[in-house]
Amino acid sequence: MNTSIIRYILGQVMGVESILMILPCIIALIYGEKEGLSYLIVLTICLLLGLIATRKKPKNTIFYLKEGCTATALSWIVMSIMGALPFVITGEIPSFTDALFETISGFTTTGASILPDVEALSHCSLFWRSFTHWIGGMGVLVFILAIIPLSGGSNINLMRAESPGPSVGKLVPKIKSTAKLLYIIYFAMTFIEVVLLLLGQMPVFDSICTSLGTAGTGGFGIKCDSIAGYSPYVQWVVTIFMILFGVNFNAYYFIILKQFKKSFAIEEVRCYFLIILTSITMITVDIYHSMKSFGEALRHASFQVSSIITTTGFATIDFNQWAPSSKCILVILMFIGACAGSTGGGIKVSRIVIVFKTIIKELNSYIHPKSIKKIKIDGKPIEHEVVRATNVYFMTFMMLFSLSVFAVSLEGRSAVTTFTAVAATINNIGPGLDLVGPTGNFAFFSNFSKYVLMFDMLAGRLELFPLLILFHPSIWLDFVASKTKKQKN
Amino acid sequence: MNTSIIRYILGQVMGVESILMILPCIIALIYGEKEGLSYLIVLTICLLLGLIATRKKPKNTIFYLKEGCTATALSWIVMSIMGALPFVITGEIPSFTDALFETISGFTTTGASILPDVEALSHCSLFWRSFTHWIGGMGVLVFILAIIPLSGGSNINLMRAESPGPSVGKLVPKIKSTAKLLYIIYFAMTFIEVVLLLLGQMPVFDSICTSLGTAGTGGFGIKCDSIAGYSPYVQWVVTIFMILFGVNFNAYYFIILKQFKKSFAIEEVRCYFLIILTSITMITVDIYHSMKSFGEALRHASFQVSSIITTTGFATIDFNQWAPSSKCILVILMFIGACAGSTGGGIKVSRIVIVFKTIIKELNSYIHPKSIKKIKIDGKPIEHEVVRATNVYFMTFMMLFSLSVFAVSLEGRSAVTTFTAVAATINNIGPGLDLVGPTGNFAFFSNFSKYVLMFDMLAGRLELFPLLILFHPSIWLDFVASKTKKQKN
Repeated sequence: MNTSIIRYILGQVMGVESILMILPCIIALIYGEKEGLSYLIVLTICLLLGLIATRKKPKNTIFYLKEGCTATALSWIVMSIMGALPFVITGEIPSFTDALFETISGFTTTGASILPDVEALSHCSLFWRSFTHWIGGMGVLVFILAIIPLSGGSNINLMRAESPGPSVGKLVPKIKSTAKLLYIIYFAMTFIEVVLLLLGQMPVFDSICTSLGTAGTGGFGIKCDSIAGYSPYVQWVVTIFMILFGVNFNAYYFIILKQFKKSFAIEEVRCYFLIILTSITMITVDIYHSMKSFGEALRHASFQVSSIITTTGFATIDFNQWAPSSKCILVILMFIGACAGSTGGGIKVSRIVIVFKTIIKELNSYIHPKSIKKIKIDGKPIEHEVVRATNVYFMTFMMLFSLSVFAVSLEGRSAVTTFTAVAATINNIGPGLDLVGPTGNFAFFSNFSKYVLMFDMLAGRLELFPLLILFHPSIWLDFVASKTKKQKN
Repeated sequence: MNTSIIRYILGQVMGVESILMILPCIIALIYGEKEGLSYLIVLTICLLLGLIATRKKPKNTIFYLKEGCTATALSWIVMSIMGALPFVITGEIPSFTDALFETISGFTTTGASILPDVEALSHCSLFWRSFTHWIGGMGVLVFILAIIPLSGGSNINLMRAESPGPSVGKLVPKIKSTAKLLYIIYFAMTFIEVVLLLLGQMPVFDSICTSLGTAGTGGFGIKCDSIAGYSPYVQWVVTIFMILFGVNFNAYYFIILKQFKKSFAIEEVRCYFLIILTSITMITVDIYHSMKSFGEALRHASFQVSSIITTTGFATIDFNQWAPSSKCILVILMFIGACAGSTGGGIKVSRIVIVFKTIIKELNSYIHPKSIKKIKIDGKPIEHEVVRATNVYFMTFMMLFSLSVFAVSLEGRSAVTTFTAVAATINNIGPGLDLVGPTGNFAFFSNFSKYVLMFDMLAGRLELFPLLILFHPSIWLDFVASKTKKQKN
C-alpha cells in the first residue's frame, strides 16, 4: 500500500483544518472571548503536524480505491480528534469522549448533541460547532481536491469515498473543476440563506450559524429550543433551504448551464419532492386538530419533514408528542434520506428508487420470465454494477444497523430510544424519539454506546465501506509491511 | 394464462382439506362434542366444491412460474377461508375476520392468536388449530405433489412457490419422490415427539397437539400459559424438537442415506446451531440473576431462543419482562429465522449467510479490485442468480415490512407493539413484545390492521413474490381474457 500518499493527505487535511480554525479565532476576537486561545493552540498544533507530514512529497502519487478509502476514513478520524480538542481545552466539554462525539456529530452533519445547555457555550465554540457541519457537508477532501493539484487521475477514488450516493456524477470531465464548482454552488446558496435570514431580522451571528447548519444539513442549533423560538418567516426560510440543500447538486449544475428542462427531469429529484409533499400532507392532516390553525400545522409539518428527510435535524416542535402514525412517517423518512450528490445523509432517494425498480422488475420476471429489460433511471439503463452496489449497500446497512442496535441495547434503555438513537446517528440526522427526541440529548449514554454511535455516524457519512475497510486485516498488514520496508532502507 | 389448471389445483386443495377435516370430526366423536357438526358441514362443502372444480380435467397440464405462483397464493387463501368457517359456525370465534386471522395464523405456522382464552375452545377446534400448523408447515401443495400425478415436469414451479428458502433443493430427481420423502421424514419426527412427550406423562391429546404445533413450527398452544405449565422434561423435549424442525430437511435426507459427514457439513445448519448456541449463552448470562438456578435460566433461555429462531412461538415465560438486550437478541432472531427447507419462517439462515458472504466479498473487492471470486456455500460456488434473488428478497422484505409498520401505526399503538406485531407475523412467529407479547394476543387490533397482518403472514410464508404477483394487473387481465375466450367458444 502507498502509505506515504496517505500520510501526505492526512497532513494536508490538518493544514486545511488549521486554516479553518482561524474563523473561530476571529469570532472570539469580535466577542472578546478568552476561549479563542484554545482554538489558537489547536490551530498551531494542526499547522505543525500538517507541515511535518507534508514536508516530504510522496514519490509515488498514484493511489487506488484501497488507499482512497483508507485516506478518507483516517482523515475524518484525525479531523474529528483535532476538532474536538478546543472543546476540551476550554473546559466547555470536559470529557474527551463527549467532545469527540460532538465533533464527529458536527463533521458528519449529524447534529446529535451531548450538551444539555448549548446556550452556555462561548460564541466561538458555537460557531465552530456549526462550521464543522458546513465543512463536513461537502467534505474536506473534496475541498482539498478543489484547491490542490494531486496526482494523475486517480483521485476520483478520494472523491468516490467521500461523496454521498450510489455513483459519483462527474459534473465536468476534470475532478478539480467538479470539486470547485460544487463548492461555488455550496457557498453561494449558504450566502443567499444568510441574506434572507437577515431580512427576517434574525441577528447576524444566528443567521450565519443557522445557515452553516442548514447548508451542511447538520442541525446543531445555537439555542436550546433549536429553531422554535424564531419567527414563522425564519422557519419557512430554513424549511426551504433544508429542502434545497437536500437536492442533488447536479440539478443546480444544469440550472447554471441554463438546461432547465434537464434539471427538472432528474428522476431522483422528482421522487424526492414527491415524498416530501406526500409526507407533509399526511402529517398536516394528522396534527391539524392539535394546532391553532391550518397554517401552523402546515408550517410545523413542513419544517419537521424537511428537517428529517434531509437529515438536518433542526426542530420547531417536540414531535415526540405526535401520534404514532406521524412518528412512523418521520422514522421512515430518517432511512430514506436526501438525494445523492447533496449534503444530506440517509440511504438516499436514488437508492430507494433503484430498489423499487428492482422489485418491480422482479415481479415482472415472474410474469414474463424471458424478458431481460434493464432498469432505467432518467431514461438511461443503469449499469448492472450500480444495481449490485446498491443491493450490497442496503444489506450492509441493515446488518450494521442491527448490530449497533444490539450493542446499544446492552445499556438497557427503552426500545424506542435505542432504535431511534442508532437510526438518527447512522443516517446523520441528530434527534430521534423518546429520550433522544428533540428536547433530549445523547449525554446519558455510556462511553461504550457513545463510541458505537460515533462509529455509526462516520459509517453513515462515508457510506459504510470506506470506514469498514479499516477493519480489514490486510490494511494493517500493509501498513506494518511498508513500515518495516522503510526501516530496512 | 392456463386458468383451467389453476381451477383444477384449487379443486384438489379443497378435496384434500375436506379429507383432513375428518380428523377434527373424529376428535369431536371421541369427546362427544357437538362442535364436530360444524366440521362435518364444512367438510361436505369442501368436498362438493372440490368435486365440481376437478370434474373436468384440464386439457393443457403445462404451467409456468406465473401459474405456479398464482395457484399457490390462491390455494392458501381458499384453504384459509374454508378452514375458518368451522370456527364461525360453532360460534367459538363469531367474527369472520377473527376466524380468518386465526386460520391464516395457523396455516402459515405463525401462531398469533386473537383468542384471549384458548382453554374455552372445544377439543376438536383445539385440534384443528394445531393441525393447521402441521398442514401448513410442509405445505399442502407439496402434499398434493406427493400423492397426485400432475403434468409433465413443470410442477417444480408449484413446489418452488410453496417451499421456504432461496432455492429448492431437489432431494431426488423426481419431484413426486422428493415430496413423498419430505412427508415421511416429517411424519416420523412428529410421531417420535408424541412418544417422547407421552413418556413425560403428558396427556395424549396435549402430546399430539403440542407435537403438531412444534412440527409445523407454528406455536398455537392449547393452554393459556402455552408450555409454561408443563414439566421441565416436556419443555426440554419441545425445545429439542423445535430446533430439529428448524433444520434444513436435506440434513435428514443425508442421514437416511447414511452420509453422516455430508449431513453435518451443511454450512447453513452449522451456522444455525452456532447462532442458537451463542444466543442461548448470552441470554442465560443476562437472565441468570433473576432465576432460581442456572438450570432454570438455561432452560428458559434455550426454550425461548429455539422458539423464536425457528419461528414457532411457544413460550415458557413472559420474555416481555426481560432486559432490553435479551429482548433485542430475540427480535434479531425473529428476522433471521430457521433454515431453508425446514418448516420454519423468517428470512432464513442461508439467506443471512449469503448476505454476510456478499458483504465480505464487497469489502475484499475494495482491497483487490480485480479479483473475481464467486461466493461459495458448502464448498460450491453459488449461482449469480441465487445471490441476486436473495438481494431482491431482502429488499422486498424490508419495503413490505416498512409499509406494514406504517399501516398498523395508523392505529396509534405503542411503537414496540406495532413493530413487533408486524415482525412476528411477517416472520411467522406469533408473539411479539409489549401488547402482543407472550401473555397478550392480537384481538385488540382493528379489522384493517388484522387484514394487513394476515397479508404479512401469507407473504412471509410464501416468501413474498408468489403472493405479491396477485397484485400484478396482468394476472387479472389474463383471467378476464381467458374467461371471455371461453364464453366465445
